[in-house]
Amino acid sequence: MSLKLTVLGCHSATPRVNAHPTSQYLEINNRHFLIDCGEGTQRQMRKYKVGFSKINHIFISHLHGDHFFGLIGLLSTFGILNREKDLHIFGPKGIKQVTELQLKLSMSHVKYNIVFHELTSHKSELIFEDDKVAVYTIPLNHRVYTNGYLFKEKPKSRNLHIDNIKQYDEIEICDYHNLKAGKDFMLSSGEIIANEELTIAPEKPKSFAFCSDTMFKPDIVPIIKDVDVLYHEATFLKELEHLCEKTKHSTAEQAATIAKNANVGKLIIGHYSSRYSDVECFKEEAQTVFENVDLARVGEVYTCTTNIPAHV
Amino acid sequence: MSLKLTVLGCHSATPRVNAHPTSQYLEINNRHFLIDCGEGTQRQMRKYKVGFSKINHIFISHLHGDHFFGLIGLLSTFGILNREKDLHIFGPKGIKQVTELQLKLSMSHVKYNIVFHELTSHKSELIFEDDKVAVYTIPLNHRVYTNGYLFKEKPKSRNLHIDNIKQYDEIEICDYHNLKAGKDFMLSSGEIIANEELTIAPEKPKSFAFCSDTMFKPDIVPIIKDVDVLYHEATFLKELEHLCEKTKHSTAEQAATIAKNANVGKLIIGHYSSRYSDVECFKEEAQTVFENVDLARVGEVYTCTTNIPAHV
Repeated sequence: MSLKLTVLGCHSATPRVNAHPTSQYLEINNRHFLIDCGEGTQRQMRKYKVGFSKINHIFISHLHGDHFFGLIGLLSTFGILNREKDLHIFGPKGIKQVTELQLKLSMSHVKYNIVFHELTSHKSELIFEDDKVAVYTIPLNHRVYTNGYLFKEKPKSRNLHIDNIKQYDEIEICDYHNLKAGKDFMLSSGEIIANEELTIAPEKPKSFAFCSDTMFKPDIVPIIKDVDVLYHEATFLKELEHLCEKTKHSTAEQAATIAKNANVGKLIIGHYSSRYSDVECFKEEAQTVFENVDLARVGEVYTCTTNIPAHV
Repeated sequence: MSLKLTVLGCHSATPRVNAHPTSQYLEINNRHFLIDCGEGTQRQMRKYKVGFSKINHIFISHLHGDHFFGLIGLLSTFGILNREKDLHIFGPKGIKQVTELQLKLSMSHVKYNIVFHELTSHKSELIFEDDKVAVYTIPLNHRVYTNGYLFKEKPKSRNLHIDNIKQYDEIEICDYHNLKAGKDFMLSSGEIIANEELTIAPEKPKSFAFCSDTMFKPDIVPIIKDVDVLYHEATFLKELEHLCEKTKHSTAEQAATIAKNANVGKLIIGHYSSRYSDVECFKEEAQTVFENVDLARVGEVYTCTTNIPAHV
């Protein structure tokens, strides 16, 4: 399994006894990312068994409290736990100043290095890349500067078809690297064995887009086109669409419209306004536009189980 | 009942699933105070039915996260709840800068006025006073600048002994004010009726001292002498006393020694280190020195039920 999302919090505005502000833990291609960090996130991480030491990258969408006020507590706890590894924090400009001021005032001499990546662009940009995953911003439209994040697995190597390879004595272990990279094999006779005979196509690279908070913003569709899983906020139902303009949030129908137009595999909605005690109605509204909808629920784990080969 | 303490959190260091950092809600003589505000305090306030609108004064002992990181979230929530009343915050210098920076970055345009009372003195001082209550600092010794707080009810008026008053036709309603203030009454004959015959002594004014975090600091004893209830941290047991010097905390025995020397009515201990899963041993250790000890437990309410007249 290469994509697994644990929802640590999915409610808007204020923490309540059974309502936790936004935070998600994403495991993608053996990378471990924390996305947003509302107050109480570290408690939720403990509750849902998220390993603190696995987190090396934290992505903050914007500096509203329900997405951000748990960060300083988590950083302090990392310090108390004697973390030594670098921690990378991506978020709006200002996040460095306020974090460093809090650490200074509390005289929290953390031993690890915090590397801030402050964002200011209003265009989608590549902000992280290694051999496994690339992360891009998704510029959103909220009351403060806000980005969503797009997480994309890098294409994987082809898998060796050992039974077929064994038919050719000339193919040695040192050739496997080229085979995994998709290259054909030329026998000493000059005959070319097609790569497709010697390897099996890998899984299609998975992708996940996180889009919260934002008002309806159709121009993100090209950025998130064909993602396997889209988390998109749906703070209100359509009956309160007039509040979206003022508060710069979306309705369930609008989230579903983005999902449909972007041809995503699955839509997860959350960030429900506290005025709704039953959130099933969000799913019902979204499904009038787009069928494959899940409701974000605290503590639930969403996996991407599509197993379609990237190519054959 | 004039003194009621609700423990919202009583653990040290990091929030965990069933361990909440320091916060207490004190009701004293119809005043409502929040003392310290670790991460998750607003959730605990909701859980234990602490009315948000009753809080007009918040006292922060020091700027370590387990006493302070929940403040900004609470202030933001006050804003979301459309608070308009002034809010007074008492705490170490720096609290204004960091709070205002966070509010600015999150563009939380709260409608109410936050009045900061930044503390820098190393001597006990009167920091709040009205007709019901006075609050004094208790300088403590921790790794950062720290104050405890002493809450003292103002002496109450004497209660009218209506049956006895009715024996004297000359005493009119307009005289009651003087009687409540303890004055004798002179009849037109020149005879003096002693106040004690016409009134009943009020309850002794209650007092509560909050002392966390601190290493053993005997010079606070004169400040907290004879308080009804003392909350004193006890992070470690005596067997780990050597850690107290390094971390500037106290043992249960040390807390009890302060309680004994200050002749307090009751000692409540808390701020347990996370290394102790069972905290009964803290009570046992403290009771080797001072008998009337309670363990702070999250969600518990401690009332001061002593009903001793102040004087007769």
